[in-house]
Amino acid sequence: MPDISERSKNYMGSPIRKLAAMIEKAGFDPDMISFGGGAPSLTPPKEVLEEMCRRVKENPQKTTAYCSTIGLPKTRQAISDDLKEWEKIDIPADSISITTGGTEALYVTLQTLLDPGDEIITSDPSYLGYREPIKLTGAKEVMIPTTWEKDFQINQEKVKEALGKKTKAILIASPDNPTGTLYNKDSLKFLTDVAEDHDLWLITDDIYKHIVFKGKFTNSRCYGAEEKTITCCSFSKTASVPGLRIGYLYGPEKVVRKISEIKQATTLTPSRTAQYAVRKFLENKGKIKREYLSKVVIPTYKARKEKMQECIDQYLAEANYSEPNGAFYFFPDINKYLERMNMNELQFADMLLKEEKVVVVPGRFFGAQGKGHVRLTFVSETEERIEKGFQRMQRFIERHSKHS
Amino acid sequence: MPDISERSKNYMGSPIRKLAAMIEKAGFDPDMISFGGGAPSLTPPKEVLEEMCRRVKENPQKTTAYCSTIGLPKTRQAISDDLKEWEKIDIPADSISITTGGTEALYVTLQTLLDPGDEIITSDPSYLGYREPIKLTGAKEVMIPTTWEKDFQINQEKVKEALGKKTKAILIASPDNPTGTLYNKDSLKFLTDVAEDHDLWLITDDIYKHIVFKGKFTNSRCYGAEEKTITCCSFSKTASVPGLRIGYLYGPEKVVRKISEIKQATTLTPSRTAQYAVRKFLENKGKIKREYLSKVVIPTYKARKEKMQECIDQYLAEANYSEPNGAFYFFPDINKYLERMNMNELQFADMLLKEEKVVVVPGRFFGAQGKGHVRLTFVSETEERIEKGFQRMQRFIERHSKHS
Repeated sequence: MPDISERSKNYMGSPIRKLAAMIEKAGFDPDMISFGGGAPSLTPPKEVLEEMCRRVKENPQKTTAYCSTIGLPKTRQAISDDLKEWEKIDIPADSISITTGGTEALYVTLQTLLDPGDEIITSDPSYLGYREPIKLTGAKEVMIPTTWEKDFQINQEKVKEALGKKTKAILIASPDNPTGTLYNKDSLKFLTDVAEDHDLWLITDDIYKHIVFKGKFTNSRCYGAEEKTITCCSFSKTASVPGLRIGYLYGPEKVVRKISEIKQATTLTPSRTAQYAVRKFLENKGKIKREYLSKVVIPTYKARKEKMQECIDQYLAEANYSEPNGAFYFFPDINKYLERMNMNELQFADMLLKEEKVVVVPGRFFGAQGKGHVRLTFVSETEERIEKGFQRMQRFIERHSKHS
Repeated sequence: MPDISERSKNYMGSPIRKLAAMIEKAGFDPDMISFGGGAPSLTPPKEVLEEMCRRVKENPQKTTAYCSTIGLPKTRQAISDDLKEWEKIDIPADSISITTGGTEALYVTLQTLLDPGDEIITSDPSYLGYREPIKLTGAKEVMIPTTWEKDFQINQEKVKEALGKKTKAILIASPDNPTGTLYNKDSLKFLTDVAEDHDLWLITDDIYKHIVFKGKFTNSRCYGAEEKTITCCSFSKTASVPGLRIGYLYGPEKVVRKISEIKQATTLTPSRTAQYAVRKFLENKGKIKREYLSKVVIPTYKARKEKMQECIDQYLAEANYSEPNGAFYFFPDINKYLERMNMNELQFADMLLKEEKVVVVPGRFFGAQGKGHVRLTFVSETEERIEKGFQRMQRFIERHSKHS
C-alpha cells in the first residue's frame, strides 16, 4: 500500500465513535446500559418530520435538489429570527451559514481561522471532539485546567498567563461537555474582554444552549466582542434530530463568507431536505420548539438528571462533582474508588463494560484534568435503568475493592 | 477583525457556487436558461423518497438518530452488493464508508493521502472542485493537458514525464466533468499499471458512472491496482437526490478506516435518514435503480444531449468538440467565435448572462486547457429550451462579431 499522509497518521480516532461502531455492529443488546455517547433519545417533534415529508411528497424534485453552500435564504432568515427571539441578538441572515451539523460548523471555522503555529485556548476538560480538528489546522491547543471545586468555570488567571503573541483564538462551550457548566456572567465578560483587548477570535460552541436546568444561557455577544465571535450551533440536541445532520454557524459576514468557501470543499452544500424540517421547528417565533423544549425535552432530561444525581449521592457517595447546570452529563471525580480498586478510569470503563454491561466514558479523553473522572450521560436511559446502572457500578466497585 | 488563516486567504471560492447563490437569492427567473451547474432536474424515484418518509413516520426517533461514522451496516452491505451486481467487483461492506455526498468523499480521501509537498496528477481540463481541496492538503496539483482532438483521454506520454519522486497519487473522473469522456480500456490499463509500478494512489471519481450514453463504464479495478485505488461516489446524479447529501467511498479496508477517522472531524456521521432512501434505491439487485436509469434518466438526458449536439452543429457550427460518452456536459472550443467578438470566454459568459439570460461556464475554470472553451450542461433544460438557449447564443454572437 502506498503511504498515507502524516496528518492522518497523527490523527487519533475518537474512542467514543469506536465504541458506537462496535455496539452498532454487535446489534442492540437490551441489557446494556449506556452512560456513554450523548445521543438524544427522545422522539423529535412530530410536526417537524411531518413537514419535511409533506414537502418531499409535494415537490420531490425541488426538496432534494442542491442549494447554495450557505443554505436556503428562508432557513437562514428563520435562524436569524430565532436568535432575535431567544437570545436578543441581531444576526442578519447573510451572516449565517447552514452546516452539516455542529461538527462541520466547528471544523470549517477552525480551518478558516487557524494557521500552523497559532495557539488556541480551550479548557481542560472539554469536548474530546476539539482535539483532532484543532490538530488538523496545525495550530497548538493550549488547555487551561479547571476543576469541579470551581464549577469548571474558566480559570481567568491561567488564561492571562497563557496569552501570548501566538494566541489566535479561544474556544468554549456553554453549557459545556463533559462538565455541564453554564458559563456565568463573570466568565463571559472576562472572555469577551480578552478577545477585544488582544484581538482574538472567540469561538463559542452553543449546541447545548437550550438544554439548561438551572440558571439561564446567555449569548456571549451580550458582553461584547461581536465582531470577533463565531458561534457554532446544531439542531441535533435541541430538536433530537442528530441523524438529519443539520447545524449552523454565524459571525461577522465577511468571515462567514470565507468559512462557507472552505465548506464548498468539505460538503458543497447542506442537506436541503433537512432545512425544511428545522425551518418548521423555528417558525411562528419557535412555537413548536418552545412547546417541545418545555413539555418534552427539559422535563424528561431534568428528571433523569435528578435521578442520576440521587444515584451518585447514594451509590458513589465518595465521588466529587459539580452539579451540571445544562447539557447531558455528570463528570464525577471517582479517584477514591479507583485507588481502592487499584485501577485508573480507563481500566474501570473497560472492565465495567465487560463485566456489567454499563458504558461510561473515561475522563482523560477530555483532557489531563479528567484523569480519575468519568463522564456519565443521563440522556439515553430512563430513571429506572439509570438506577440499575448505578447498582451494577456499585457491585463492580465492591467486587474489585481491596477492603481494609 | 482578527486575521484569518493563510489557507483560507489562498482559497478561491467556486465561481459556479457564487453564481448558484446569486441566482437563488434573486429568486427563480423563468426566462433564464441554464447550461450552468450540473444539477439533476429529474424527479427522484418515488419509492425511494416514500420509503424514507415511511421509515421516518414509523420510527421517528431511530431514523433521525446518530449512526457510526462509516454509516449503517445494512446500507454499506447494499452498496457492496450493488458493486458486485453492476461492476463485478468484490468490495466487503467494511471497506465502504458512507459520506456526505461525493464532495466529502473526495475531501477526506485527499486529506488522508496527501502531505504538503506531495504531487497529485490530474487532467487538464478536469472538475473545478478538485483545485481547492487539493490545495488545502498542501500538495501540488500537476495537470496533464488533454485535447478534444484526442477525446480528452489521458495523455500517457505526458503522465510518464510528470512522474517523479514526489508523485503520490493520480485523480481521474470517468465519465469526466467537464468533457464527458469515458476512459477507455487503454487509458485505464495505463493508469492502473502506473499506480502499481510507481506505488501510487489511484483516486477514481465515479459519480457519473451510470450516466453513460455510448460505450460502457468499467471500474478501473478490473485492470488492477485494487490495493492502491480509492473510489469516490455519490447518489446525487444517479438517483437525482443531491439535496440529501449522500455518497460513499471505498478502497482497502485499512485506509478506509483511516479516512473515516478524518471524517469524524468533518461531519461526524452521514445522514441516517438519507441512508434509508438510498438503501431502497439499491435493494433487490437494484430493481428500482435499473428501471429509473433505463426508463427515466438515460432516455431523458440522452434526448437532451442529442438535442444539444444538434444545436451546437447548427448554431455553433465552427465550434470544435469531442462528443461526450457520459456525464452531463459538452465542452466545445469556441475560439473562432471569441476571436471574431474580440473577447475571451470569461467575458462571453458574463455578457451572455446579462444580455441574453443564458448561463454557461467559462472553460478556464477547469484548467488552462479550457481557455476558449465553455462548459454547457444539457441536464437542466428541456429540448425546447435548449434550442432557445442556442438561438440566443447565436443572436449574441452575431451582435458582437466584427464582420469582415
